[in-house]
Amino acid sequence: MRDHHVYDLGDFTLQGGLTLRDAKLAYQTYGTLNAGRDNAIVYPTWYSGRHWENEWLIGPGMALDPDKYFIIVPNMFGNGLSSSPSNTPPPWDRARFPNVTMYDNVRAQHRLVTEHFGIERLPLVTGWSMGAGQTYQWAVAYPDMVERIAPFCGSTVTSEHNKVFLDSVRAALTADDAWQGGWYETQPTKGLRAAARVYAGWGFSQAFYWHQTYRQLGFSSLEDFAVGFWEGFFLDDRDANNLLTMLWTWHNADVGKTPGFEGDTERALRSITANAMVLPAEKDLYFPPEDEEWACAFIPHAELRVIPGVWGHFAGGGANPTDTAFIDNALKDLLTR
Amino acid sequence: MRDHHVYDLGDFTLQGGLTLRDAKLAYQTYGTLNAGRDNAIVYPTWYSGRHWENEWLIGPGMALDPDKYFIIVPNMFGNGLSSSPSNTPPPWDRARFPNVTMYDNVRAQHRLVTEHFGIERLPLVTGWSMGAGQTYQWAVAYPDMVERIAPFCGSTVTSEHNKVFLDSVRAALTADDAWQGGWYETQPTKGLRAAARVYAGWGFSQAFYWHQTYRQLGFSSLEDFAVGFWEGFFLDDRDANNLLTMLWTWHNADVGKTPGFEGDTERALRSITANAMVLPAEKDLYFPPEDEEWACAFIPHAELRVIPGVWGHFAGGGANPTDTAFIDNALKDLLTR
Repeated sequence: MRDHHVYDLGDFTLQGGLTLRDAKLAYQTYGTLNAGRDNAIVYPTWYSGRHWENEWLIGPGMALDPDKYFIIVPNMFGNGLSSSPSNTPPPWDRARFPNVTMYDNVRAQHRLVTEHFGIERLPLVTGWSMGAGQTYQWAVAYPDMVERIAPFCGSTVTSEHNKVFLDSVRAALTADDAWQGGWYETQPTKGLRAAARVYAGWGFSQAFYWHQTYRQLGFSSLEDFAVGFWEGFFLDDRDANNLLTMLWTWHNADVGKTPGFEGDTERALRSITANAMVLPAEKDLYFPPEDEEWACAFIPHAELRVIPGVWGHFAGGGANPTDTAFIDNALKDLLTR
Repeated sequence: MRDHHVYDLGDFTLQGGLTLRDAKLAYQTYGTLNAGRDNAIVYPTWYSGRHWENEWLIGPGMALDPDKYFIIVPNMFGNGLSSSPSNTPPPWDRARFPNVTMYDNVRAQHRLVTEHFGIERLPLVTGWSMGAGQTYQWAVAYPDMVERIAPFCGSTVTSEHNKVFLDSVRAALTADDAWQGGWYETQPTKGLRAAARVYAGWGFSQAFYWHQTYRQLGFSSLEDFAVGFWEGFFLDDRDANNLLTMLWTWHNADVGKTPGFEGDTERALRSITANAMVLPAEKDLYFPPEDEEWACAFIPHAELRVIPGVWGHFAGGGANPTDTAFIDNALKDLLTR
């Protein structure tokens, strides 16, 4: 667990009605908040990601330049650093950890940004995957605060096919008897590895595997990649209940569920005032570009730029320099507007 | 188990070196073999399919017209009717059932067709999915016998991405402790259901789910479809070891492994003399049209026709009348050549 800060949210009542007591929001910052408090960028984490796994998009000369901006990376609830099944004391630990919505996450982040830092305007919110979902959620929940959004490889509402994919990850993980309904003392590693195997087919495109592009990442064969990258990914200090908590958040994501919109996703999208740069990846198998085209038809100020190439969802994961440059350039363009 | 015939193969030595003793090839026929023995069509089954699940493409007025052709549907090894882990006596039962290749399957079918029926020429071999793989295998192994092939939604060699998908199905199925390494007395239904959930994301396209096309099949919601169609599919007299046997066959499929080609897939494809009508589906997620375009570049007499629409792999499953008409018309065109 690398260095980070923790913001005490106190007793934090969730959309579902339960209260997360002594709730913690773990975060890290990069750069310095200026005197006008108007140079902050919020950059939330993704499914299972930790703040340090966002750092590839931050650096001098990049759009997210810490010499210019104050970049806040809040960790999602359930990622093991912010309040999660793995770090919450009984009675709300493990299988009893409450369901958390996208809006709950963003509302907690909003408290950090406003109460702790005294920030009233954000030049940009951006993020990958579930981070993109939180980005949209910020724009819908706090339109007077968010000037620009750049969601990449994510969606405004979880599509039915995406739910099928998520259900398959859950089914594989929980097929392991060692999971014990969430009351395990040691991780159900067979289930975690099975979930990783399921994820492997979705994370990268058919063409990525056809061309054995994993060799660029230093893997020597398909099985080497399946175990070394994917199973390793799911065993890297991940926790089964934490993954299931974030999976629920994702499964139930819909900006239309923001208070005031009564489930009307299209109305929520029409209400966005931020300037939007929407970046799906050409061959993303669970957030296909078509879904973002659909969303952009409702967002008043949106540009859609499809990240080309074979990397699929992981075009937004920071492993391919070409895709990273594409995203960085798009962010630079957006920040000039 | 519906009515069918059984051809006794005797002791059948497999490519892997083991001998399947008292091997059985279950099959069904439709129509009458003519005096010249030149009106037979071979139409093998697909992953987990049984002969009756091929019947939707057979009928008066259709390309596969039993008034005109003698249609033979051989059941794949491992499907529960032909020799399989579930019906083979010890010591070769269950987890000890040997690995069977595509070539093993087709060689057994060749014996039925030649020894039992005395057929020397086949106007057509066709099939869906793994049936398409067997179709290609027929054309490579018996070029002097096969006049035409029409593989739909399948491949000549299992791609790496397809293997990732198959590995995920296996991982989900075997994550269930009830599987017991194949030595279960009752089916590992939790694992079968998890495997079904994995399959659900791949069998139909993103757009199929986006438009809730499953409603055309009589399902009332996403979860209704996931349980009613998919879990039901995997529990419909399927057997875990049988599924794993056929999965191995699929995983290792490659026409280049036909004796005489030393693993050279491209050379095997160049050797095909049959007139080929290759029918991938536009949105098939595990047999994408690009792979068949690649194969058609090597097959001397091949026409590629992409089945349009949102049904993905199941465009070839017989559930959508539009796709069935597309395939039937392509077969009719091919049979005039």
